[in-house]
Amino acid sequence: MNLPVIRYILCQVMKIEGAFMLLPCIVSLIYGDHEGFCFIAVAAFLLLAGFLGTIKKPANFTIYLKEGCVATALSWILMSVFGALPFWLTGSIPSLTDSLFETVSGFTTTGASILGDVESLPKSILFWRSFTHWLGGMGVLVFLLAVIPMSGGSNINLMRAESPGPSVSKLVPKIKTTARVLYMIYLALTVIEIILLLLGGMSLFDSMTLSFGTAGTGGFGVKNDSFASYTPYVQWVASIFMMLFGMNFNFYYFLLLRQFSKAFSMEEIRNYILIIIASVTVIFINIIHMYENAFSALTHAFFQVTSIMTTTGFASTDFDTWPTTSKYILVILMMVGACAGSTGGGIKVSRITVLIKTIRREFSSYIHPKIVRKISMDKRPVEQDVIRSINVYLITILSVLIASVFLVSFDGFDLTTTFTAVCANLNNIGPGLGGVGPTCNYSGFSFFSKYILMFDMLAGRLELFPILIIFHPRLYMKK
Amino acid sequence: MNLPVIRYILCQVMKIEGAFMLLPCIVSLIYGDHEGFCFIAVAAFLLLAGFLGTIKKPANFTIYLKEGCVATALSWILMSVFGALPFWLTGSIPSLTDSLFETVSGFTTTGASILGDVESLPKSILFWRSFTHWLGGMGVLVFLLAVIPMSGGSNINLMRAESPGPSVSKLVPKIKTTARVLYMIYLALTVIEIILLLLGGMSLFDSMTLSFGTAGTGGFGVKNDSFASYTPYVQWVASIFMMLFGMNFNFYYFLLLRQFSKAFSMEEIRNYILIIIASVTVIFINIIHMYENAFSALTHAFFQVTSIMTTTGFASTDFDTWPTTSKYILVILMMVGACAGSTGGGIKVSRITVLIKTIRREFSSYIHPKIVRKISMDKRPVEQDVIRSINVYLITILSVLIASVFLVSFDGFDLTTTFTAVCANLNNIGPGLGGVGPTCNYSGFSFFSKYILMFDMLAGRLELFPILIIFHPRLYMKK
Repeated sequence: MNLPVIRYILCQVMKIEGAFMLLPCIVSLIYGDHEGFCFIAVAAFLLLAGFLGTIKKPANFTIYLKEGCVATALSWILMSVFGALPFWLTGSIPSLTDSLFETVSGFTTTGASILGDVESLPKSILFWRSFTHWLGGMGVLVFLLAVIPMSGGSNINLMRAESPGPSVSKLVPKIKTTARVLYMIYLALTVIEIILLLLGGMSLFDSMTLSFGTAGTGGFGVKNDSFASYTPYVQWVASIFMMLFGMNFNFYYFLLLRQFSKAFSMEEIRNYILIIIASVTVIFINIIHMYENAFSALTHAFFQVTSIMTTTGFASTDFDTWPTTSKYILVILMMVGACAGSTGGGIKVSRITVLIKTIRREFSSYIHPKIVRKISMDKRPVEQDVIRSINVYLITILSVLIASVFLVSFDGFDLTTTFTAVCANLNNIGPGLGGVGPTCNYSGFSFFSKYILMFDMLAGRLELFPILIIFHPRLYMKK
Repeated sequence: MNLPVIRYILCQVMKIEGAFMLLPCIVSLIYGDHEGFCFIAVAAFLLLAGFLGTIKKPANFTIYLKEGCVATALSWILMSVFGALPFWLTGSIPSLTDSLFETVSGFTTTGASILGDVESLPKSILFWRSFTHWLGGMGVLVFLLAVIPMSGGSNINLMRAESPGPSVSKLVPKIKTTARVLYMIYLALTVIEIILLLLGGMSLFDSMTLSFGTAGTGGFGVKNDSFASYTPYVQWVASIFMMLFGMNFNFYYFLLLRQFSKAFSMEEIRNYILIIIASVTVIFINIIHMYENAFSALTHAFFQVTSIMTTTGFASTDFDTWPTTSKYILVILMMVGACAGSTGGGIKVSRITVLIKTIRREFSSYIHPKIVRKISMDKRPVEQDVIRSINVYLITILSVLIASVFLVSFDGFDLTTTFTAVCANLNNIGPGLGGVGPTCNYSGFSFFSKYILMFDMLAGRLELFPILIIFHPRLYMKK
């Protein structure tokens, strides 16, 4: 394994995190709280260590898939550990495990919290908490690829390990340009949302933090009731932007290139929108009797469907009180997730599309055994290797889900709570049902369960293999 | 499609069902109840119709996979409709839908019941109810292949459609002999269980009906509390036989041929036993504090694990009161199921084994991308086509599960009840958790949900495709 390049990447990540940690210092200055010192201390350490660690460049920049996975997994763990320090050092979250849980939840854009009362926290802490979503949403390594010159053409393996989806499509031939375009689209959409929220009369601080939470499909809010007390205008803006950030970013790239027909004929985008429309319709009919008027029911149905499906996890109402059918749809949407190449989690619509197509192909083989049909997507045949890896992905995520629920079940919560807690963390959503419903939090779980859930969040965000592989004994064996 | 051969098979099935329906008539005679007349009437009709329908043999006996599936699906539906008539005609179950539910549950060896009080039913009705398990366990078409001369070598497609498992292995080159050997093993094991239960002081009637329920891995009992009031001896005998009937029958065939090393090196058998040992151990530790002594806890743990994993569904205790971890293990065992080539349902241990091996292969490809590893089972490579079909099987059963839970959720039961009800029917177990726990029954569901659950039972027993395909529009289109 190419250890020098992994060391180099990790130290670059420390530099980036250190630089971004100066942002909450500014917030601290503006609001005059004392937490700024902790941020400066951690930032200084990160910058210094990162600087020292990157003086010596590695002789060989080759990154195979294995190195890409290990570097990505370790970057995310390192980033979470240092990101947790401000919560702990300022005393905002007294327990180190809880601080780590909150930070992993932030970077992985899960949004599961151990905090019951967020409104009492200092602004700089709240800012950092929400900003972790923004950084984790598009990915710190993608950022690194966008800003730092790294020679060698094997950087795709870094991006492959960090970016969600069954296959990474380079928008342009150069990885660096692809990474830049992605971050430009990401930044532009975030700024538009901030402006729209400001127009709705929201304060700049709330607009920014909530936009970070939406953009990364994270879900940390700055109010104890998440989105319930905001106006319908704000709720609709947030819903629409959650939907937009859950779309495959290739869609926006095609729009930028004015290739509209190509953009709107993307099967994943179509299916994504179809699933949203169908889910909203059924839930709307199912819950209409619970709200004072149809508009209110529609607002909550649309908000919750986009929030859960994009794996954001904001709540506009306590959906744990909804009828079984509506709750069940939300659980299924948790697993389905957003589009590949978006900031959302879950299995991803493109994978689900291919999986369903394999069922159709099987039927054909029963009825007309002699006709060999290929599975195609966006009018191009899907490689057998991609189908295989999608199948393995499904099996692996189910295995991780089954094993995690088993381990968390020892805490003795009921089945719905235990299952949806793991499901919500593995798919980076945040709230589940029952004891982890939108009005509850994760503080009641044991330390052991919290580490299992952190593992699930990382496994979900990095799409399993990068994080699983660092536990594989064969990685450490000499050939 | 070769319709004459389908007609011929259906009429043969009617003859067989008519003949077997004479058994409850004998029971009726012995116990002097009046239900015998209804059985004779239905049996006479079946025999007559079957006889008339089989006078003219089809010109062409070729059965392609398509015909095999359609014939199997229609046979099972026909068998269930006529099998339900005695329940309805005798007034034992006043509703026709409920009668059909009970019969489909019987033939598919599910054991889900709409009856709260079975002890008040006439003996002949109870006998028929349990006997449907025995007939459905090994399969009526396998029986047909064993006794009726059918020319042409394509009968394997009938067996393939009815027998559980990813691939049908003919024990001997001739289908007819294979079918006979299977039924001989099945009958012998059933008789041994009856004798062992008689030795435990049980009445002949109870011994026979419970052995039918065990052999077919069905789960209909003759007492209202299922197995709770029987002695530990009876519970252990039943547990062991549930375990035996959940094994791949190839194992017994190897034993008969004295190929002991081949029998005991079967990976599926080994994994099956390992899963049982692991599950019993965890549940035993988890529930030991709930029972008066360790032996009692072990008895219930072993009984429930074998009962659920083999998809039998007998209950020795109310496992719905167990801790979350134990209940969760039972839910997972529901999905795993028994071995292929057994009378049990579920996804099957061999499929799970192959699925887990695909994860291992994926890890290898990350660590050593250049080494191509083949998946092997019992030291032979598994064909890519078998792996593909196992993957599709997993995706399809999950899709059916997800869709069925959605449709049943409109009844408004809680999530655990709804989910485990579908899970227990789709995997042919019977009892679930919550509102369908071992002390409850399925009478509370709407007619609509009952038909969905019947569909699931048939889909589970026939392993999805034979029953799904008859709903596929392309089947009825001219080429």
